[in-house]
Amino acid sequence: MAASPPVAIIMGSQSDWSTMRHAAETLDALGVAYDARIVSAHRTPERMVAFAKGAKAAGFRVVIAGAGGAAHLPGMVASLTPLPVFGVPVESKALSGQDSLLSIVQMPAGIPVGTLAIGRAGAVNAALLAAAVLALGDADLAGRLDAWRRRQSEAVAERPEPSEP
Amino acid sequence: MAASPPVAIIMGSQSDWSTMRHAAETLDALGVAYDARIVSAHRTPERMVAFAKGAKAAGFRVVIAGAGGAAHLPGMVASLTPLPVFGVPVESKALSGQDSLLSIVQMPAGIPVGTLAIGRAGAVNAALLAAAVLALGDADLAGRLDAWRRRQSEAVAERPEPSEP
Amino acid sequence: MAASPPVAIIMGSQSDWSTMRHAAETLDALGVAYDARIVSAHRTPERMVAFAKGAKAAGFRVVIAGAGGAAHLPGMVASLTPLPVFGVPVESKALSGQDSLLSIVQMPAGIPVGTLAIGRAGAVNAALLAAAVLALGDADLAGRLDAWRRRQSEAVAERPEPSEP
Amino acid sequence: MAASPPVAIIMGSQSDWSTMRHAAETLDALGVAYDARIVSAHRTPERMVAFAKGAKAAGFRVVIAGAGGAAHLPGMVASLTPLPVFGVPVESKALSGQDSLLSIVQMPAGIPVGTLAIGRAGAVNAALLAAAVLALGDADLAGRLDAWRRRQSEAVAERPEPSEP
Amino acid sequence: MAASPPVAIIMGSQSDWSTMRHAAETLDALGVAYDARIVSAHRTPERMVAFAKGAKAAGFRVVIAGAGGAAHLPGMVASLTPLPVFGVPVESKALSGQDSLLSIVQMPAGIPVGTLAIGRAGAVNAALLAAAVLALGDADLAGRLDAWRRRQSEAVAERPEPSEP
Amino acid sequence: MAASPPVAIIMGSQSDWSTMRHAAETLDALGVAYDARIVSAHRTPERMVAFAKGAKAAGFRVVIAGAGGAAHLPGMVASLTPLPVFGVPVESKALSGQDSLLSIVQMPAGIPVGTLAIGRAGAVNAALLAAAVLALGDADLAGRLDAWRRRQSEAVAERPEPSEP
Amino acid sequence: MAASPPVAIIMGSQSDWSTMRHAAETLDALGVAYDARIVSAHRTPERMVAFAKGAKAAGFRVVIAGAGGAAHLPGMVASLTPLPVFGVPVESKALSGQDSLLSIVQMPAGIPVGTLAIGRAGAVNAALLAAAVLALGDADLAGRLDAWRRRQSEAVAERPEPSEP
Amino acid sequence: MAASPPVAIIMGSQSDWSTMRHAAETLDALGVAYDARIVSAHRTPERMVAFAKGAKAAGFRVVIAGAGGAAHLPGMVASLTPLPVFGVPVESKALSGQDSLLSIVQMPAGIPVGTLAIGRAGAVNAALLAAAVLALGDADLAGRLDAWRRRQSEAVAERPEPSEP
Repeated sequence: MAASPPVAIIMGSQSDWSTMRHAAETLDALGVAYDARIVSAHRTPERMVAFAKGAKAAGFRVVIAGAGGAAHLPGMVASLTPLPVFGVPVESKALSGQDSLLSIVQMPAGIPVGTLAIGRAGAVNAALLAAAVLALGDADLAGRLDAWRRRQSEAVAERPEPSEP
Repeated sequence: MAASPPVAIIMGSQSDWSTMRHAAETLDALGVAYDARIVSAHRTPERMVAFAKGAKAAGFRVVIAGAGGAAHLPGMVASLTPLPVFGVPVESKALSGQDSLLSIVQMPAGIPVGTLAIGRAGAVNAALLAAAVLALGDADLAGRLDAWRRRQSEAVAERPEPSEP
Repeated sequence: MAASPPVAIIMGSQSDWSTMRHAAETLDALGVAYDARIVSAHRTPERMVAFAKGAKAAGFRVVIAGAGGAAHLPGMVASLTPLPVFGVPVESKALSGQDSLLSIVQMPAGIPVGTLAIGRAGAVNAALLAAAVLALGDADLAGRLDAWRRRQSEAVAERPEPSEP
Repeated sequence: MAASPPVAIIMGSQSDWSTMRHAAETLDALGVAYDARIVSAHRTPERMVAFAKGAKAAGFRVVIAGAGGAAHLPGMVASLTPLPVFGVPVESKALSGQDSLLSIVQMPAGIPVGTLAIGRAGAVNAALLAAAVLALGDADLAGRLDAWRRRQSEAVAERPEPSEP
Repeated sequence: MAASPPVAIIMGSQSDWSTMRHAAETLDALGVAYDARIVSAHRTPERMVAFAKGAKAAGFRVVIAGAGGAAHLPGMVASLTPLPVFGVPVESKALSGQDSLLSIVQMPAGIPVGTLAIGRAGAVNAALLAAAVLALGDADLAGRLDAWRRRQSEAVAERPEPSEP
Repeated sequence: MAASPPVAIIMGSQSDWSTMRHAAETLDALGVAYDARIVSAHRTPERMVAFAKGAKAAGFRVVIAGAGGAAHLPGMVASLTPLPVFGVPVESKALSGQDSLLSIVQMPAGIPVGTLAIGRAGAVNAALLAAAVLALGDADLAGRLDAWRRRQSEAVAERPEPSEP
Repeated sequence: MAASPPVAIIMGSQSDWSTMRHAAETLDALGVAYDARIVSAHRTPERMVAFAKGAKAAGFRVVIAGAGGAAHLPGMVASLTPLPVFGVPVESKALSGQDSLLSIVQMPAGIPVGTLAIGRAGAVNAALLAAAVLALGDADLAGRLDAWRRRQSEAVAERPEPSEP
Repeated sequence: MAASPPVAIIMGSQSDWSTMRHAAETLDALGVAYDARIVSAHRTPERMVAFAKGAKAAGFRVVIAGAGGAAHLPGMVASLTPLPVFGVPVESKALSGQDSLLSIVQMPAGIPVGTLAIGRAGAVNAALLAAAVLALGDADLAGRLDAWRRRQSEAVAERPEPSEP
């Protein structure tokens, strides 16, 4: 029954993929399998309910949900699954993701969404956080995550390179 | 089958009632029947889905939904019913309802929520807007609404009264 | 006397049309007739008063009003007509529509404006909300609106397509 | 015909008087006559139109308008009179006058409102600005205004007094 | 001694001219003479003090001051002259003029700056407000201002023209 | 060596405890052991470094970090441990926690902090999210968490109780 | 000639003293002499100019300037003295010091103000920063500052004390 | 031992150099030596700790630190060195540096960071403020700084040049 990979990456629309693919690429780099789906809280609410209620039984262990504007997807999924849900506020056009951020992070007591930064950085970090959670029970992944972070540290140069004016 | 009153007033929690009762009192003043319920998008998502999917068949014609913080109730109900939904951003503690407002009003194209002002004024106005919608097909109500507005205009004094310093 | 179509789309200036035409196109798709006019609260206040006071007698049933910056048009029209008024905050240059949104949504108790999202999404949704209101008394329109929403849901792909980096 | 005093102080509601009375008191201190009225753009739009269109002929020379929330009064009056209009954003409950400020100051090109600070300081300053305008044609008032400002400067102590912890 | 034109347009830097020239052009259209100068509160504080203290004696009657960021020019000039000062918040790079607006409008009780909208609209309106002030004592200018406003109203089309998608 | 309980609750100062104790109480209710400590990123940076670098070896599995204002504690700890870190923005005096929220959530790509809501709700939810993470490897805890959530749902009344005006 | 103490604490009004006295008390604790004065940029601009132009010759070495709202004092003093100026945004009534902060920190290139946090924390820190600057040339003060910071670190308890609910 | 130049310019990443190089160029123009380094609080926390703890002994006298988003570098360095630290909020993508500004300026009482404006102006001003601090003990530098400021004042033209529309 638990045929699903450990991480579900869901997003409200196709246009969110240009942000959320950074979560996918980071999971690829860490050797963590995932399934990426479009699940719109507003345009496909019943698909959303079905996904969320079945996520644990399907074998998912962590859900990464990205959405923009009045971003209800992460919180609604969190209300329907006991799995940890990490939310990525996608940058919106008029308000630059301030609406997305507040809609995701300001959840009432009782239903948590662990929220990451607006945009690409948030997508990368949702993947890293999902990996840190999975690594609690997977020493191999813990090792790969440590290596990834060590490479990241080593890649920081000592001094800035000239940049164009 | 259509035993419900025309207006449903729903809210995310008991604490929202101190705001939403102003919608109820305004509908009382206009002679419009309503049903007030607690329906939490996050703590009772299945009750919310059931309410929203059945609202039209139950005989409701307009839904007034109030919520605070990451306020998903108005938008989620709007995604599950063809009825007009009017949203009231309840004033939140830390952010004074700015989170509530953006979570309700910034809906993506496809699923509208007609949003009113933060707090008490928004609750009163949601009731007035619901009445205006119902009045399109109810000349008696239209007359009562006109009278209400006329009394409101007449109640505006010509000159300010002294106020304490 | 009631020769007007059911929906009036008004806006403060020609430049708002690039936003408000999305309301018009959505009404076209739903088969709802409308009249689109420029009515500036500030530059043509008397035209605005005349329009608003005569809107119901002219046969309009719902008013959609778009404006940007210190956006007074929706609220002023709402103060002069018993018809439901839906407001669309047009994205402004410096403040990205935050001024438009607050100027429209924060109406005092007594005069409601059902406010939609900033920009194009808000214009589309104002049309959908107007249609939902009209559909309360028009089963044919209710059917067309249901079909529109069903097509919208069906158009959501299961999985994201690759996007350019 | 010009029986009105030179300054009109108008406000949207009785509750604004606790702010706007500071404009009145400042004009009293400067020996400038005024008329204080409640004129609600939303609840008494026709009174507002009548006031604004007749203000110049009535003999007013400057209009001070205070309002809160979706504050349309200053801008609407400015659209209907050639007189200079100064706007005072009254502090609103949820948003502390940020909505009032943006609704008043962000007027489109063509219809100016000279906007002062949120709350009491803005009301005092609207009176001082009105006096400065009238003083251009009234040397006596110019003298009184200079004296007022000189006293204000002289009242600034050299060193702070102890204050309670 | 009073050889100056009635209006001074001052600004903090050359880069503000792309905004403030709209004030100049509007005054040109109204037949109001002006002098445009760069006076930086921060880089040329003594020039600023000298200008402000001498502005009335030089014959100026109204000062229009534009500045961006921590925009101190309008308020500082207002503290040094009894003339009416109108402030134009120039759009700043990072904060889009929100800093400029608050730095200009939030003056303490005692020193008023009549503040206009951020950017071009504010510059146009500062000129119109200056003209309205001068028109109180100049019937010819009042006539030209009325004509300008009438032409503005007449230029508003009845219906929107098609715009590109 | 792994004598520590699974959850560390750390906070920047004693004053944060009135917020963070809600995390502790929630963990108590769920039967999850924790250690609560004051670790100030700014006043005890070396204690912070020592804690973070040793957290995994000490046996902690999840870190909950609360801080206000320029809230650097969650992000700095996250930079020094591979464990999942959940951040709680404590409500600050002047800016109501908006500074705390942005300082915690806007982490750059590479170092994630799963951020919860401002204040008490965020503290409760950090505990629930920590429990959800631990429950991935602890079926008993998963059962207790499910029961907690079920009781929460059942505690939502159907209709609002009267509240004082 | 250099009879002044090394630090000047200036503020725009008596009401700022309840904030700025925390700077004074911190300097007292560090054994740094100072002079506290009221210097209003707006109500006493000439006193401000005289103070700033004479500050270096008077023997001051660092200026701490606190102001609220449209807070021009720190920046204007910085434009008139080569001494380092540190600005403290005093919490304002309506906007909680957001206006004060932006008015102080967003100085244009050329005239720096080192800005501290809004309110009491900013006043304490302005004193500490002034002390750190003076300690560069005063080994005794450097020792006292180190001791102050060491005591601050040692005063941080290991674990939170119970607090009232 | 004190072989370091007086000023350290540190930044969180290579991408910050396009902002921070303006600090470097300003110090070049003033004849102040500096060392520019990349020190990431998050990706190289141990390098950051080592740098900050050794900065004084290495001979640095002032630290300029630039960072964006959840910008922890300036405050963390300030917690680990007694030297004066000046912070430059680098403009971030989604929030235009508002997150950077609040993360840097809102430090708690006890650990000061003198914060400059967002972006290029802040970088220039951090250099000028560092020079003003160093000039307290270096009369030659004081002279060069005075000359720089005089040239800046003289470079301000009297009147604006035409600019393109």
